Order: sequence, then structure tokens, then C-alpha cells
Amino acid sequence: MNEQIIHNPVIDTLLDRRSIRAFKPGPLGDDVVATLERVAQQAPSSQYLNDWSAIRVADPALKERLAAIGGQPYIATAPLLYVFVADEHRNTAIAAAKGVDPAGDAFTLDGSYRFSQAQNDAVLALHAMETAAYSLGLGCVVLGSLLNDVDGLVDALGLPALTYPVLGLAIGEPDQEPALKPRMPRTMQFFEDAYPADDASLLAGLPAFDEEVHRYYDLRNTDRPVDAFSDQIAANAVAPMNGRVVRDSAARQGFHLDR
Amino acid sequence: MNEQIIHNPVIDTLLDRRSIRAFKPGPLGDDVVATLERVAQQAPSSQYLNDWSAIRVADPALKERLAAIGGQPYIATAPLLYVFVADEHRNTAIAAAKGVDPAGDAFTLDGSYRFSQAQNDAVLALHAMETAAYSLGLGCVVLGSLLNDVDGLVDALGLPALTYPVLGLAIGEPDQEPALKPRMPRTMQFFEDAYPADDASLLAGLPAFDEEVHRYYDLRNTDRPVDAFSDQIAANAVAPMNGRVVRDSAARQGFHLDR
Repeated sequence: MNEQIIHNPVIDTLLDRRSIRAFKPGPLGDDVVATLERVAQQAPSSQYLNDWSAIRVADPALKERLAAIGGQPYIATAPLLYVFVADEHRNTAIAAAKGVDPAGDAFTLDGSYRFSQAQNDAVLALHAMETAAYSLGLGCVVLGSLLNDVDGLVDALGLPALTYPVLGLAIGEPDQEPALKPRMPRTMQFFEDAYPADDASLLAGLPAFDEEVHRYYDLRNTDRPVDAFSDQIAANAVAPMNGRVVRDSAARQGFHLDR
Repeated sequence: MNEQIIHNPVIDTLLDRRSIRAFKPGPLGDDVVATLERVAQQAPSSQYLNDWSAIRVADPALKERLAAIGGQPYIATAPLLYVFVADEHRNTAIAAAKGVDPAGDAFTLDGSYRFSQAQNDAVLALHAMETAAYSLGLGCVVLGSLLNDVDGLVDALGLPALTYPVLGLAIGEPDQEPALKPRMPRTMQFFEDAYPADDASLLAGLPAFDEEVHRYYDLRNTDRPVDAFSDQIAANAVAPMNGRVVRDSAARQGFHLDR
């Protein structure tokens, strides 16, 4: 398989991406904020619904609250902190102003497909922002940990009905230089025309990848190598989810994921 | 609000993004494919699960089948065509090889949180690929339309249990020059510390945005301006979903979105 990589500033930014979890203090400029937010807005949006929003978390006490939810103290230290939100609230208000009845049988902005669509659009926007941030010499970490407590996050950010938190993004000037984290062989993740029919061929590259991951050192725990990929996956496959049932949290936000 | 935008090649690539739906014929080089796929792999992955895959659709008959599912003939004309897939199949096989019982009570890779997490990771990877493609002078369109028929797509691509199609991505050399599509005022999509408490302030910028959208011409239908944003949203709010219930399609793929 050809592994000749083309280089340019965009591709190098994307290939050099690693999560940054330690930030130098100090606010980022208004021009940085404007640039990152405009870039996020220009990401693709399915059916032009523009069905996401983002909360820029500036209040230090609110940052601390989110850090507690995520169980990660560095969240509170991020100069820029966003929570991206699937947002059918705004579109519902817009449609209602045009005479659409949000309680009517024909209404679908509160259903599972729109929920999923809005979630995807929020992630597209977040990733555009993340990539732009790296191009400015900043570093980021995507925060799934905020979903430890969706209800608490909803309360903290005053998220109305028909919104749902998708992911957070912490941004700042890097104060650490983590190594690039390994990725599995391309042939284990990209397949031509069909998913591999047998698991043996799917996993042929796994032993070498396990070795490579085991040699990687995580800055969060530098005194020992990380577990092999297989061991990490086996542990995560039975890790308790602590009530992270999307349907239930979404229902409390007015989404009906059963339709 | 400061609207000073910083420019560099990455930011300009992201700000200049528009969907491309007409492609010049001819295959793209192996180095392009290798670059785009490696870039996608380096996107962030929640908890390092690497829980996505992508099918590179090369067979012309299969492209036609996907174009029929999406109801968009240009899908078949894309020199490069991908379907990104939330993938807990591979991780389940990996965990099973380590002794984890996928039918056991402790197993969670088939639950709603992992499903959502894998979906997000697939979108992050897709967007990294899309951005890299634009940087190479290529154009893309993200294909939500393939989800018109999830079961048909699963069948077409041989997607096994615990995988789920998220979005498609068509890539090629642009054969059209669409205008940049308007985005709403930044203050309608980014909020500080809390979601706006009243819809009046949320929608203050809407009339001007409606006007701007109405002045935009879509290359798919150049003989008239597009509907105002409000009108598009009102129509979509009651557009039939034709059975796009994520829970049901996901259940057929072995995911239990009720837990």
C-alpha cells in the first residue's frame, strides 16, 4: 500500500495534532476568539439546518464547575473553553414563528434523526475550531468527560429544551509537549468496498500495534508505559457507564429518541 | 464584538469551505488517498477507542447503488467516496480475544454512550479528511443523504454487527464554483456562560440573516433565490423523516440505545 504523504500547512497541522492538557495562563485575544468562532460556523451543516450552538465558558466559577463534572482539573485552567451543543431549540423557535406547531404530529425537530444530525453538525464545527486553533500555535483537548453528568451540565449552562451537550473543547497555549499518539495501521481502519468478512484479517495488524502503543508514554502517567491497545479496549468494554444513557438524558431535554 | 479575523493557510482553507457537488473525472493519486486517510486517523478519538472505520467505495456499481440510496446522482461521479462508520465491532473482537464476554452483563460497547462516542469520533475523522482534501485543491460534500436507507447501506457495504454508518464523504477535483453560503451572525450561535434565556434576544439577528440567505443562489437551482432561512427551517421542521429512527436501525446492528 502506498504510504507517500503529501505535505502542506493544513495537512501538517492535522498530522501533528495531539491533545494538550496543560495551558499557559492568560487570555487569548479577541481576534483569536473571533477567528475560531467564524471558522466553526463555516463547517458543513446538514441540510443547512445550522442546528448547533456553543457556549463560551468565561466565568471562573463556571469553569470550576465544569472541571468538577469532568473530573479533570485542567478544564478550569483553559483560557478558552467551549461546550458545543446540538441545538434544535433555536430552529424550533424559528419554525414556531412561522406557524409550525412544536406539539403537532408533523413536527420532527425533536426526533432521533434530527438529534443525530445536530450532534454531527456540532462535531464538525468543533473540529473546524480545533484545527484552526492548532494552526495558531494553540493546543486543545476535546472533552467527552463533561458528559459524566449531562443533567448537571445542562443546569450549569442553562441549556433549554431541545438542546443537548455534545462535546467540550478546551483551548490555550500549550504548556506541555506530548508525543504523537500512535494510530493503528491504515488497513485496520480503511476498507475497500466492504467491511472485512472475517475478524482474523481485520485484526492481522493488531499485535504490532499493541506493541507500539505499549511503548508510548502518556504525560499523564510518565512512570510506566501505557497498556497495550488490546488491554485498554478490553478494560473499556466493561467499564461502568454510570448512567450515561443518552436516551434518558435526551428525553429530559425534550428529545424523543424512540421516534 | 471584535470581528478581526486572523489569516493563515489553515484558517483560510476552513473559511473558504463550500460543498462541491460536481467533480472532474479521473482517479486521484495513491498519495492523495494515503494522505487523506492518515490525516483522518490522526483526529482525536475519545478515550483512545479508535472506534470508527471507513469504507472506501471504489466499485462503480457500488457507487451507483449508494447514489440511488442517497437520491443524488453526483454521488456516483465522485472520484473518491467514503462512508464513515461508528465501529464497535473491531473493539468487540479485540476485547473478546482478551476474554471479555460480549453477551455478559458488564459489556457496554453496545450501549448508547459508546454508540454516540463512536459517532462523534467518526465525524471528527471525516472532518479532518475533508479539510485536508480542500487544502489539496479538492472539493467535498458530506453525505447525510446515505442515511435515507440505513439498512440498504449496511447491506451494500457488508457492515457487521456493532457498526453503524454515520456520514459519507464525496471527494474530487471541483467542476463548479459555488458561492460561499451565508452563516448566521456569530452572536446567534455563540453565547457566553449560558444559553440566552429568552428567544427574542436569541433571534434578534434573524431578519437580516433571512434576507442574506434569500439573496444567495444555489447552483443546484440557479433560476431563483433560495428560501429565507426561516422558511427553510419551517419546512424542515415538518418534513417527513421516512422511518429514519436511529434507535431501530441501530438495534438491527446490535446496538441497544435504551441502555
